[in-house]
Amino acid sequence: MLRSIYDHNLTQSKSYEWLDHLSNEIGGRLSGSIQAERAVDYTTAELAKFVDRTEKQSVMVPKWTRGTPEFAYIQLGNLNTINVNVCALGGSIPTREEGIKAEIIEVKSLDELEVLGKEQIQGKFVFYNRPMDPKKIQTFEAYGGCVDQRYSGAREAGKYGAVGVIVRSMNLRLDDFPHTGSMSYGDLPIENYIPAAAISTNDAERLSTYLSLDSDIQFYLKQDCTVWGDVPSHNVFGEIKGSKYPDEIIVVGGHLDSWDLGDGSHDDGAGVVQSMQVLHTLKELGYRPQRTIRVVLFMNEENGLKGAKEYARQAALKKEQHIFALESDAGGFTPRGFSFDASDEQMALINSWRNLFKPYLIHYFEQGGSGADVGPLKEQGTVVAGLRPDSQRYFDFHHAANDTFEAVNKRELQLGAATMTSLIYLIDKYGTLKKTLD
Amino acid sequence: MLRSIYDHNLTQSKSYEWLDHLSNEIGGRLSGSIQAERAVDYTTAELAKFVDRTEKQSVMVPKWTRGTPEFAYIQLGNLNTINVNVCALGGSIPTREEGIKAEIIEVKSLDELEVLGKEQIQGKFVFYNRPMDPKKIQTFEAYGGCVDQRYSGAREAGKYGAVGVIVRSMNLRLDDFPHTGSMSYGDLPIENYIPAAAISTNDAERLSTYLSLDSDIQFYLKQDCTVWGDVPSHNVFGEIKGSKYPDEIIVVGGHLDSWDLGDGSHDDGAGVVQSMQVLHTLKELGYRPQRTIRVVLFMNEENGLKGAKEYARQAALKKEQHIFALESDAGGFTPRGFSFDASDEQMALINSWRNLFKPYLIHYFEQGGSGADVGPLKEQGTVVAGLRPDSQRYFDFHHAANDTFEAVNKRELQLGAATMTSLIYLIDKYGTLKKTLD
Repeated sequence: MLRSIYDHNLTQSKSYEWLDHLSNEIGGRLSGSIQAERAVDYTTAELAKFVDRTEKQSVMVPKWTRGTPEFAYIQLGNLNTINVNVCALGGSIPTREEGIKAEIIEVKSLDELEVLGKEQIQGKFVFYNRPMDPKKIQTFEAYGGCVDQRYSGAREAGKYGAVGVIVRSMNLRLDDFPHTGSMSYGDLPIENYIPAAAISTNDAERLSTYLSLDSDIQFYLKQDCTVWGDVPSHNVFGEIKGSKYPDEIIVVGGHLDSWDLGDGSHDDGAGVVQSMQVLHTLKELGYRPQRTIRVVLFMNEENGLKGAKEYARQAALKKEQHIFALESDAGGFTPRGFSFDASDEQMALINSWRNLFKPYLIHYFEQGGSGADVGPLKEQGTVVAGLRPDSQRYFDFHHAANDTFEAVNKRELQLGAATMTSLIYLIDKYGTLKKTLD
Repeated sequence: MLRSIYDHNLTQSKSYEWLDHLSNEIGGRLSGSIQAERAVDYTTAELAKFVDRTEKQSVMVPKWTRGTPEFAYIQLGNLNTINVNVCALGGSIPTREEGIKAEIIEVKSLDELEVLGKEQIQGKFVFYNRPMDPKKIQTFEAYGGCVDQRYSGAREAGKYGAVGVIVRSMNLRLDDFPHTGSMSYGDLPIENYIPAAAISTNDAERLSTYLSLDSDIQFYLKQDCTVWGDVPSHNVFGEIKGSKYPDEIIVVGGHLDSWDLGDGSHDDGAGVVQSMQVLHTLKELGYRPQRTIRVVLFMNEENGLKGAKEYARQAALKKEQHIFALESDAGGFTPRGFSFDASDEQMALINSWRNLFKPYLIHYFEQGGSGADVGPLKEQGTVVAGLRPDSQRYFDFHHAANDTFEAVNKRELQLGAATMTSLIYLIDKYGTLKKTLD
């Protein structure tokens, strides 16, 4: 059966064609945007062609818009200026219309702010410049070790009276793309909110060099993004009813929303179309699942996780029994395996399937870690998992303007979908995950 | 030690810088070209900066040049013409100066020629159009299942009086790049030699479609490549003498030559700089090898393997004891592991190291298969091995104009070099491969 699943995916898959539409016909799908709603309608219509039932589940999501392109430069002591590549972080407030020009102080961590104190920070930009650690083999670990600067940088600097924050892009490469992503002001009083922007890694290096050579640097930033109120949006489901245990639900999903700079092909168009492909492949191969298999395309993973939370809330309300949930949200690269939030006993079952995957060069089955959207289901005792593709290039594209259709390789995307389909098939067929948990 | 090797490679590697020079300053390095000799001199000079001894080993290599760009079109029954993307295969003769226009007959295999016979083939082009099999997970297997069309297509069609052969490019993607590669006329009488060219996969599909719709298709090909006599060239060595067993030689290598359409960054600039990096890393980490470790950069892998054969011949003459030889010639992509031409007993030792590699996501240790350049050493009882990077994208670039520096990811290249260094280190430290063989 696994052989058929891989063969089908590598020769008759719809995933690449769907991704082409999502990426090139629709484009970036930020929560609350017209593109996000077009993606809801498109995927619902596509799913309806081959599943038993589709549903659009209502959820309120935050709306934030970037406005006109950001503009920033470094002003040297001799008044020469050097333009730099920046983008507003998602959720940031704008600058005032004429922009902000101020001194800028470089730090490598949030902790340094306390040492510097208000007198050295007030009235200045704070420039967070701790790079991702290239020594981490798993690039998500390097990301995890840096992203506090982006997420909490403005909140912390706001406490010390900074006028704005400039954050080195979460990117292991040196290039010119600024990488956006979510940030939060947390419990900061609204009057202390300050604009936050990311700067490309090349420009972060440049800025740091100038700061080391010239004691009279000023930084200018202008951005006119807008934080709106919450707006209605949707998660999308498509399911095939189980023939034997229809009440046992297996979820496979990704997130429909994306950032707005690129078209979100890796993050997470790939996961969306791979999840749809799981059901499409099983259907095309004539496999009738024992359990209900549900594709869930979550809204608002990027800046709120509202879709995932609402999905889990409704599942609990309806007392739905979710035995397993798999997410693909790490890019459309060559699949290496899965990580599981599962008990030792459950891992023993899962590990017994390892050899089935070896011919497909899938070797990685590790305990710990799944995905943001399936996370909220953990509280209900669901075993959750994440597809683990090769991660080396992921942060070259993540949340940046180069996360486009061309960056996704068709075969790699297909192999990911085949690997997901194989796991979902095994869980449907042999899975006693819920029972071992009881 | 492995941790230090990976850390060093991911932060202080020279490999990417060397590749930049080979690719962008020197460019495509076809055997017998001025670029190939510049690459000999450059790598010798770079190696001399950190090894105990360098050597340029003389070897005669075939010289073939492409001449002015090839030109080809499909002429429809209504006399409209459609230009198509072709390139001469390496070793092909030219067409006559005015080109060749003839009918064209499509086949999917060499065997079909016998069925068609002389009356259906004579005076026509033969169009070999069997695609690589997308169902193969290892793309090298798909390549192996197709490449007879390119290598032997002209020899076989020449027997039946064809005027030329057009071969579908060895590429799993549909795109516009024709992919060159070696071909041979074998024992065909010289008067039966016919020109051979590759056509892009998109154009192969197009041509096939036209042939199915229009019974009056003609094909035009013009190319002015030249087969020269053999010319002198070199393999390059750089070695660090073993402190304890200087007569036991461990080889690590790639091939210096490349095709001429791109700059040969994946094939095999990556293998060249990774091999150099192995010694550089060990040196920088202050590791003094017990055995002699020799980087060998082979000339003429692509169209003759003359460098590898000469290397093995000289090694036998000098009674050098080669205990192990590792080749990197499968692209600069994320490393997955190694394949070994080794006995079961030797594999047992090698497999005992598996767990050391797991933190670096290296899982693949398989028996069978190594690399073309280290192949001739097998006769001397040397255990030979090949680095196995992820192969999904390799044939998108292989032998085509898009095999350029930009197609290589710095981290992936570095991880490959670190993985090779780790294996060479283990073999030097614990390797008793030669002993188990005796």
